[in-house]
Order: sequence, then structure tokens, then C-alpha cells
Amino acid sequence: MSQQVLGVMGGGQLGRMLAMAAARLGVRTRVFDPSAEACAGDVAELVIGAYDNEGALARFCEGLDAATVEFENVPIDAVTFVQDRVPFYPNARSIAQAQDRLHEREAFRKAGLQTPRDGAVTNEQEIEVALRAMGSPAILKSRRFGYDGKGQAWIREPSDVPGAWERIGQRAALLDEAVSFQRELSLVMVRGRTGEVRHYAATENVHVDGILHTSRAPAEVDASALNNLRQSVEAMLSSLDYVGVVAVEVFDCNGQYLVNEFAPRVHNSGHWTIEGAVTSQFENHVRAVMGLPLGSTDSRGHAGMVNLIGTVGEFKQQLACEGAQFHAYGKLPRDGRKVGHVTVCAETAALRDARLREVECLVEKGGCHVSDSA
Amino acid sequence: MSQQVLGVMGGGQLGRMLAMAAARLGVRTRVFDPSAEACAGDVAELVIGAYDNEGALARFCEGLDAATVEFENVPIDAVTFVQDRVPFYPNARSIAQAQDRLHEREAFRKAGLQTPRDGAVTNEQEIEVALRAMGSPAILKSRRFGYDGKGQAWIREPSDVPGAWERIGQRAALLDEAVSFQRELSLVMVRGRTGEVRHYAATENVHVDGILHTSRAPAEVDASALNNLRQSVEAMLSSLDYVGVVAVEVFDCNGQYLVNEFAPRVHNSGHWTIEGAVTSQFENHVRAVMGLPLGSTDSRGHAGMVNLIGTVGEFKQQLACEGAQFHAYGKLPRDGRKVGHVTVCAETAALRDARLREVECLVEKGGCHVSDSA
Repeated sequence: MSQQVLGVMGGGQLGRMLAMAAARLGVRTRVFDPSAEACAGDVAELVIGAYDNEGALARFCEGLDAATVEFENVPIDAVTFVQDRVPFYPNARSIAQAQDRLHEREAFRKAGLQTPRDGAVTNEQEIEVALRAMGSPAILKSRRFGYDGKGQAWIREPSDVPGAWERIGQRAALLDEAVSFQRELSLVMVRGRTGEVRHYAATENVHVDGILHTSRAPAEVDASALNNLRQSVEAMLSSLDYVGVVAVEVFDCNGQYLVNEFAPRVHNSGHWTIEGAVTSQFENHVRAVMGLPLGSTDSRGHAGMVNLIGTVGEFKQQLACEGAQFHAYGKLPRDGRKVGHVTVCAETAALRDARLREVECLVEKGGCHVSDSA
Repeated sequence: MSQQVLGVMGGGQLGRMLAMAAARLGVRTRVFDPSAEACAGDVAELVIGAYDNEGALARFCEGLDAATVEFENVPIDAVTFVQDRVPFYPNARSIAQAQDRLHEREAFRKAGLQTPRDGAVTNEQEIEVALRAMGSPAILKSRRFGYDGKGQAWIREPSDVPGAWERIGQRAALLDEAVSFQRELSLVMVRGRTGEVRHYAATENVHVDGILHTSRAPAEVDASALNNLRQSVEAMLSSLDYVGVVAVEVFDCNGQYLVNEFAPRVHNSGHWTIEGAVTSQFENHVRAVMGLPLGSTDSRGHAGMVNLIGTVGEFKQQLACEGAQFHAYGKLPRDGRKVGHVTVCAETAALRDARLREVECLVEKGGCHVSDSA
């Protein structure tokens, strides 16, 4: 058996963790990234090129057995170029749909999922009309290239419209009702080439300043509601002929579940699966894309994750945190940049939460001792 | 914080798994290996050179923050060359001691550990004399460059002596009593630069044809006897100023523990720690060598490991094994070659054993279903 090679478009931390999961399966990884500093290059072959550099893209494609993306904002022309040459998952259609908030929402509603109320807008006048219909406050979200809270602006009263329109770059947008939710959940699942779908435990997320701060799994969710959500998402994936891991963000509004967006890729809210599930989201994405049998998505205890943002700070003290599992991405610290994460696993939710609090304190202040009892 | 770089001499599967553990800590890895096919090269920078190529060794050393070995048979001159230029752990003295069975046994006995009876021999006549003193059967083991049963020959009666001497290459050797043991154990532990030692659960191993076949942990061992063994080994490590992971092989003869050999490195019998412990042996070796705080060695349930030897066979069917965790090393299959391993974890020893049996059956025959109940 000669060694198989997986191509990943994008060489950030998601590409890096995909490459490490692929290596465990004996699969080599080649990543494509515009930057020579792409951190996945530490553990994978790196082809450097702009996404419109067809020569570089062609070199990237040479000898690949399959290819995928680490994030949904890879320009669709580049995705299509590679998909024309190499088995590519998830397909360009799925990625294109996730690139546009309007198309994404329409796909959800077609699959029978409830979403926040929204309206497509392309200028200030349309925003004002939509705002009158929907009421304040609302959130203006650019239809394309939004992630980690980028491309979003709150509108608390009509006079905020010009500033918000300016802030998102005067681009086609959705005006979204400001949903009053109790919690944010994500559903991470994987769909294989055969159509088989496996679900990870539902995850509860806390965002700070639009960036994921902590995740906890399994989240307690009404079984029947969860099952309905999953079935509707499965129907959407099936209609897209989707292959790979997908993460769906859901607002829980007192038991009414509004689906906000999906990421056609491995997702930050699934990082806990590295230690907290039998098979990580990264390995299952590789398995799906390479046409291998999917691995068990069963949980291993109760898991919690804290993102390291902007700095890895007192690296040594964080590592001294008993029972915590540390992941650094090999990226230079920069404001608002995800540079690593810490996972804790425990046999009970209470012990997990106690450990998670201590890790959070450590991440904020440096130094901590994670106790062995709740 | 600029990224640290770890050097690893030897680019096989151990170097590969060390590199992946280092990457999780944000540490880049450079491996040195005589072969361009070295499988660690998939996930790390690879410097290719013979171990006596000082130019290549000097290139390897450039900019390293620390260096280590993936196996003990790296020529000691090469180790010394690197140690003279880069902080090197475990030190050359420890590695040299593990390279010679006689010195290794002497160190054990000095630390108060019991070993099998042995005698140093350098020719057929000395073997015959030692055999008369010790009795048959006995095992002739070359003092140097033995691993996975290589450099060993059984002597069942005096007439076997010439053939055994021939078989081990007519090199300086130990004649070892053939110990009648109930089981083989290994003690895997890590010693940090500060002298702190942490122990993984004792592991019970089954060898087939001199190569590790399966490991199970935690093994049930009398707590007081285990504690005594560990303390004696710690004394030996302290006298060597040892830093890193070490694995000690022990024969359990009805509760009498005879220490056979030690490996100054991460060890096959510790592969289960990737999923079966909070911090893997690979990560703890990197932490120790880089001078970082050691991670928790606590077990996560009951773990079992099966080696994949010679072939990865029905790769897809093995991956379909529910609950099993698959590791391929990216090596071409060859008779007797370790090309991967499979780990199972469970909440009870009985369930672990049931799953392990199913994985063994699958490894031998291809295809299996690992059940969820014992």
C-alpha cells in the first residue's frame, strides 16, 4: 500500500490539526496557503501561493488522493479549480452556500429548520425598511466573509444605520433580529461518502466579543428536539451531497431552537473531541474525505475547552495545570488571534466545570492549580 | 514568544509520534535520519545523513533548543557530537549504559534491583563455563544492538553453543538464565529536568517472537512491590541525572520481580498512553526534554494496545472497528516491521479485554466488529 496524500486548502490551526489526524491514519498532508508562515507547515508539506495563482494550485493538486478546505472563505474559484482535478469534499456547492449568509439561511428553512428572522439588504434605505418591520435592536451582518464576529454591527436605533452600514464595508448584508437566547449550542457531525452520518454530543458555547471562549460537551438538550434538529440538518446535508464534518450553530430560546449558521468544516466548538471523543472531529473529517469508514463519535466523559486568544502568556504555568490538555498552534501571538486551546475532561459535569473555571482563571491571570475534586 | 525547536535523532515511528506531541505544545521538530524514507519526515523537518556525517549533524544542530533520541542505538559518537552543541536529554551516559546489556544490569543491581542471573562471555569456551554454572536452558544475548529479540539465541543444551554463538554474530554477550516468569511488565515513567518523576500505570505485555504483541494497563501489581521497584529505578535515574521517559522491563516470577532491561526513550509498551492517559508518554518526553512542567500521568480508564506488524492489511476494515483507535506510521509494510498500532480504552478491564480480543482477531484475519458490551 503506497501512502495516500490529502490536500488541505488553508494552512492555519485547523489545517494543522487535520494534518496531525491524517498522519495518525498513515495519510500524508499537503496544505495550500498564501503565507510562508502558515502554521500547518510545521507538520505538513506547504505549497505557498495566492488563491488565484493557478500554477501554484496545479502544483498543489499533483498526486493528491483527495482534497478539502480548512475554512469556508477559500475563494470559490480556487475551490473549483482543485475540485476539477482532485476528489474534493465537501463539494464547492456546499462551500459556496456557506459563504453567503442568505443562501445558508434559505437552505436551513428549506430543510424545515427555524432561523432568526432576517431580511436581505443592499443599501441604507433597505436597512431602514427592514428595521421598521423587524424592530430594534437588530444586527447587520455582511452576507460574505464573516467569521469570529467580523462583518457584523449592532443597530440599537434607526440612527445607528449609517454607522453600521459603514462598519460592515457597505456590502450586501442580512439584517438579523437580535435573538434573545438562553444559550448557544453547536451540533458537530460528520457525513461519509456513503451518506452515513454520525453525531458528536451537542456542545454549549460561550462567545466573548464574537469569538468562541469556552465549549462544554455533552450539553443537556431535550432528546426529541435534538433529534428533530439533527434530522433536518441531515436532510440539508443530503441535498447538498455533503461529505465531511459540519458544525451548525443554534440559538436555544427557551426550548425554541433557531439555527444561525453552519461551517462546512471542522470547527472550534469541536476541538474538545480530540480528548473528549473516541474519534476526533479532525480524524473523522479525514476519514470522510478519504472515503474511509467513520470512527466512533462517542464521548469520553465530560469535556470542556477554553480558547487561548491573543497570547499564550505564561506558557509554562498553563502546562503545569494538572489534568488539563494543552494545544498550541505554533502561531505568533497577535490581538484577537486564536493561538491555542486547553481541554479538560472529567467523569462528571461538575468536576469538568470546576476544572474549566480554574483553567479560565489561569488563562486570564496566569498560574493556577486545577484541583482533583469539584 | 518565538517558536522552539526540538531535535530528534532517529526518524522512525517514535520520532514521528514525538514530533506530533511536540506540535501540540507549539514546538517544531527536526529529525535526523540516514534514510530519506524516514516516516517522521511526514510531520517534521528531516535532515538526512549518516550518523558519522559531521556536516549533516552540524546542520541538524543549528538553532535547536534541545535534542533527544528516539532509540538507544544511535551511535554514541553522534550523540556526543550533538550533546556538545545542544542541551541533550537523556544524556549520552544514560544512552551508553542502555547500549550495553552488561552495564545496564550492573546499574540495576547497584540500585538494589534484582535481575536474572547472567554472566559476561566473549567466546565459546566462556559460554560453556557459564552454562555449566547456570544450567540449561539459557539465552545468549549480544551485549550491544539488541532490540525486538534481535541478537538473541536460545541454548537448550551444550551442543547448541556453537550455533548460538554464530547466530548472535560472535560478539561480546551475556549468558542469561531462562527465567520462568508468569508475565512481563513494563514500568514507564518520566523524569523532568528538576528531578521530578511521574509514573504511568504498570503495563502488562505479551511478546510474540520477541516482538511486543499486546499491552494492557493498568496491570494489577502488588502496591508495595511496585513502589519498591519504582523507588529503586528512581535511584538509578537520579545517579544517571536522567531526563526524559524511560521504560523498564520486568519479569514477574510469582511475585519476585526481576528487572531485565531499560529503554532510555519512549517505548512501544507506552503507546497506550496516547488515549489511555491524560498526557501521553510522547508529550511528557517532550515536556521533560524541553524543560517544561510534566503533565499528569493518570490513566483514563483501562487501555489495551495491539501492534500492527508486517502489514496494515485490510486497512479499511480495521478502521471500521468501533471504539478502536488506529495509528499508522506511514511505513511500507515489511516482514516483522512495526507499521502501526491499535488502542482500545474501556471503563472496565473486562470490557477492555473483550475489545482487545476482537481487535487481535481482526489484525490476524481482517474484519471485525468490536462490541459495546463484554
